[in-house]
Amino acid sequence: MSRAAPTRASAHRASGVSPRPDLPLGVFDSGVGGLTVLRAIHRLLPGEAAIYLGDTARVPYGTKSGESVVRYALQAADLLVERGIKLLVVACNTASAVALDALREHLHPLPVLGVIEPGASAAVAASSNGHFLVLATEATVHRRAYTQALHRLRGDAVVEELACSLFVALAEEGWTDGAIADTVAETYLGGARLHPSGTRPDCAILGCTHFPLLLTPIRRAIGEQIAIVDSATTTAEAVRAALDEAALACTRRHAGELHFMATDGTERFARVGTAFLGKPITAAQVELVDV
Amino acid sequence: MSRAAPTRASAHRASGVSPRPDLPLGVFDSGVGGLTVLRAIHRLLPGEAAIYLGDTARVPYGTKSGESVVRYALQAADLLVERGIKLLVVACNTASAVALDALREHLHPLPVLGVIEPGASAAVAASSNGHFLVLATEATVHRRAYTQALHRLRGDAVVEELACSLFVALAEEGWTDGAIADTVAETYLGGARLHPSGTRPDCAILGCTHFPLLLTPIRRAIGEQIAIVDSATTTAEAVRAALDEAALACTRRHAGELHFMATDGTERFARVGTAFLGKPITAAQVELVDV
Repeated sequence: MSRAAPTRASAHRASGVSPRPDLPLGVFDSGVGGLTVLRAIHRLLPGEAAIYLGDTARVPYGTKSGESVVRYALQAADLLVERGIKLLVVACNTASAVALDALREHLHPLPVLGVIEPGASAAVAASSNGHFLVLATEATVHRRAYTQALHRLRGDAVVEELACSLFVALAEEGWTDGAIADTVAETYLGGARLHPSGTRPDCAILGCTHFPLLLTPIRRAIGEQIAIVDSATTTAEAVRAALDEAALACTRRHAGELHFMATDGTERFARVGTAFLGKPITAAQVELVDV
Repeated sequence: MSRAAPTRASAHRASGVSPRPDLPLGVFDSGVGGLTVLRAIHRLLPGEAAIYLGDTARVPYGTKSGESVVRYALQAADLLVERGIKLLVVACNTASAVALDALREHLHPLPVLGVIEPGASAAVAASSNGHFLVLATEATVHRRAYTQALHRLRGDAVVEELACSLFVALAEEGWTDGAIADTVAETYLGGARLHPSGTRPDCAILGCTHFPLLLTPIRRAIGEQIAIVDSATTTAEAVRAALDEAALACTRRHAGELHFMATDGTERFARVGTAFLGKPITAAQVELVDV
């Protein structure tokens, strides 16, 4: 599979683009995980077309420097804007934490949504006692972006962030149910269930786009008394609100088309991504791109 | 933590360096996994000093294009040669599969060893029936480098390569023993044990630098009748042979000093790397470098 040499200029090319309702949504992630966000959007807004870009050549972003992540995100945004989009969803926790301001400035007046703020808002609405458990990757936990977002919304929030790295590997391997997933979830989360008193979290945020695939074992391990907020679903609701607010909702009456782009490994993107999207993707549907 | 801007030229700068016995060994990997190779070298050759470089900013290499991996490997080699080394160990399966020829040409006359050839040689020596089971990451399996190396050594070799992606996550999480590790190993490998007939592999190669940490659950799952070849140990033996052959073995009588460099995340390198090296590494011992 050949790939063209990168030719796009990197700085400020996208500024001043005016979004139109008939354009697709743009969804960007470092890999396949953001397909759970696309899935939630597609379920809530089935008439909206979308272009998804997974930067699989440079995944994971979590271990990269903030400067690199901002640069990667701007490059990805430029490519999506070049294709024509009306709103950008940053379906990547690291890029949401690090690059959202830069993207908003770069793409103005195009609306830009991340996954952290919608998840934090929904969690604050779901919690009574203001104690939150954030389940995320090691890099997201290290960055404390959910803690900061929760504190902005509720000053007295008590936040425990818990790295559940193996959930990512389980999701990518497709081992999302069964004995191994249950045991891993129990190992990470059993403690949260054993103490369901007032001093324990009453709301857990799935702070990684991979984790909605593990919802069943997570629910089993965490018990029924803790609300689970899935930032994919809450981001989809934020997309609907943003489209309504900006009068950008698609008015055509047909099923939204989905287009996929990846910066490497289109075969793997299709194979692993199928489970994340919840519907089949073939390698032929995935366009190999440079950013 | 600050980092200097990269200033080194990329092409052919290192050529013509003459190695000397008093210099340290250079060990290069995409991340922390190669520390199992360094551990094996340090155990076999305790008088040899070594400099280890983990390209943690760009890990994993397995999903990158071959051209990128060659470029990264040459950059890493340049940095190590600049510090002064007498032999380079490429302790990364992807770089060993893709970049060894380019590195040998670039660094001549410095000896360059990968991890695949020593592992394949040891496996051919250990097998009676010529049937091999290679346990590796998805990317290594996809590349079939062990199959090619085994066929070069034994034309009638029958090779089954098996991606065991979760082993990497388990090793990095430190869950290398116990119920989860056993269940994961059993899920991947139980089939190999259930049919120990002549038509089944009699030798398994640990084709990922992370997997020696999982030796106990792998052995339990695979049974006692299959030999396990650890490419870390076999690479250490190849290093000793290469040093002897080139008259480069260190003749000073003191314990070899180890120096660590990483391209990102020195704290994580130290924390996770400690288990891989089998002795403590502190963040202060890990130098942050650009390549």
